[in-house]
Amino acid sequence: MTQLDKHVGLAHGNGGRFMRELIEDVFARELGNPQLDTRADAVPLPWDSDEGVLVYTTDGFTVQPLEFPGGDIGSLAVHGTTNDLAVAGATPRYLSLNVFIEEGLDIELLRRVIASLGRAARESGVVVACGDTKVLPRGQGGGLYLATTGIGVRPHELELGIERIRYGDRILCSGPIGAHGIAVMLAREQFGLRGDLASDAASVLPLTHAVRSFAGLRFMRDPTRGGLATVMHEIARGTECGIRLSEAAIPVQDPVRAVCEMLGYDPYYLACEGRVVAVAAPDTAERILVEWRALPEGGQAAIIGTVTAGVPRVVLETSIGGERFLEELEDDPLPRIC
Amino acid sequence: MTQLDKHVGLAHGNGGRFMRELIEDVFARELGNPQLDTRADAVPLPWDSDEGVLVYTTDGFTVQPLEFPGGDIGSLAVHGTTNDLAVAGATPRYLSLNVFIEEGLDIELLRRVIASLGRAARESGVVVACGDTKVLPRGQGGGLYLATTGIGVRPHELELGIERIRYGDRILCSGPIGAHGIAVMLAREQFGLRGDLASDAASVLPLTHAVRSFAGLRFMRDPTRGGLATVMHEIARGTECGIRLSEAAIPVQDPVRAVCEMLGYDPYYLACEGRVVAVAAPDTAERILVEWRALPEGGQAAIIGTVTAGVPRVVLETSIGGERFLEELEDDPLPRIC
Repeated sequence: MTQLDKHVGLAHGNGGRFMRELIEDVFARELGNPQLDTRADAVPLPWDSDEGVLVYTTDGFTVQPLEFPGGDIGSLAVHGTTNDLAVAGATPRYLSLNVFIEEGLDIELLRRVIASLGRAARESGVVVACGDTKVLPRGQGGGLYLATTGIGVRPHELELGIERIRYGDRILCSGPIGAHGIAVMLAREQFGLRGDLASDAASVLPLTHAVRSFAGLRFMRDPTRGGLATVMHEIARGTECGIRLSEAAIPVQDPVRAVCEMLGYDPYYLACEGRVVAVAAPDTAERILVEWRALPEGGQAAIIGTVTAGVPRVVLETSIGGERFLEELEDDPLPRIC
Repeated sequence: MTQLDKHVGLAHGNGGRFMRELIEDVFARELGNPQLDTRADAVPLPWDSDEGVLVYTTDGFTVQPLEFPGGDIGSLAVHGTTNDLAVAGATPRYLSLNVFIEEGLDIELLRRVIASLGRAARESGVVVACGDTKVLPRGQGGGLYLATTGIGVRPHELELGIERIRYGDRILCSGPIGAHGIAVMLAREQFGLRGDLASDAASVLPLTHAVRSFAGLRFMRDPTRGGLATVMHEIARGTECGIRLSEAAIPVQDPVRAVCEMLGYDPYYLACEGRVVAVAAPDTAERILVEWRALPEGGQAAIIGTVTAGVPRVVLETSIGGERFLEELEDDPLPRIC
């Protein structure tokens, strides 16, 4: 019996195998009910509006440092939750906000973060409808943690889900991967590295709204914790299909690639906070590519792989003509990335 | 300029003046919108079901220790949020759950807490529809923090609110106050006290459902952080009326009174987690008293005071015939009580 069988470790929070097993073993078992789909980004509620069905999602935020190039924990707390609604095909409408503040936090820093949260909410068209604050004694809080829960509206006719994916479907990514993970890491002083790289943290609503009604679109997800590889594993597990990705086709910015090579990270496991992965029938994938590339958020969108028959593994065709398996994430070099 | 002007202190989380000012100054200012009523327990959303209008609320939980006589952080996370919906007159239907786990937490303890949360949810008739977990590095988490956001349904015809309170209305309390605060405090080893006292933490739904449709019921609230006195101050501020309470009428259990006298606490500021304060027209108050006393949760319910004309202060008529002002809470001897 290992340590991780008896005590929670950082690997239980990284989006990979340990986290999935903890959620299945503790949360799904104790809270199990037909509505709690632990693999869904957002769940439908049994209420309709004129515009569609209400959907519900929640996310917690612990990023360190609280402000980083390209964003801060406040804007991230809006984008993280509204993006989960967006990839479910919904339009975000309301957020609730939980704030856990460590005693001693600078009030001006708190004000900047909450102002940033307010701006991101207005830009994303969501209203912060209710909130709660708790103050944690010094040494028990890591500065600031946020949680946001979102309600959105999904058009009635929209049907997206892993179960709709078929052999031969194409996999798209809306832009370069891993910039959020590397930007946050570089902003931590202990790494002693500095760069111009900014997080990709942003609303993905323009991307999802542009294509959500396309027939042939099967599924969308934002590759956050655990990165692109983790979304690919969810698809492989959910479909029992294989996944083939082309290393040459996956967009990665040069500075991300450089830091990964220097520190031994694999960009496919790094968090993005403003990208969409979509799975679509081949002709629909081409249409999505055209739509996305015409948007400022999608200029570097690419078709990066294919859903295949065969064993549910994630295979990367390398740039030099080889193959390697992308395994499910187990350890995580980067805690508090989101 | 004091320390509390520049840095967040524990008093910013206690339900009293500093917390109110921080919420007004930072959160209401940066997130302000017509929906965000920072004084409401639950806010209406612009959607209806056959049974009523949807209402929304959220709460965070940081209680220490995680398990205490009469409850634990899991059941508290259900009762805290469903009680906010209940006192708004609503029937709770769905919860989202955010879990912040500190590295090193015993997985069996986590399982007990989540199992307790599941039981409380089933007993309260709510479904946990979505969730998120984050793991915090050792030393940055205080064990476990939870946040729950709830959606409930409030009958269309129901109209409750501070603004409906009138001179001469009576104030009721559904049971003895302060047991939660004292039970949690005694469960902390550093106090070196032990007692049989259990927290009052429980669902207040039976109490609110029994009376929510009574004409003449103006307002209900659960006196959690900051206790009874803090709810009285909210009413005084919201109505610009005075409040007169009768010390002899306010139910307080003997062990709570004894610990308060020993340690110099005032029971009127201690958290309850299973009580309702209601304000109603005099004849309605008598009807509520009869209803509540017939319920197991309300056997010690009492009419404890009156809304008066005059300056918005909270006056306690003492048992020996004197008067004292209950001031708005400033400092808090008990952090992490909820």
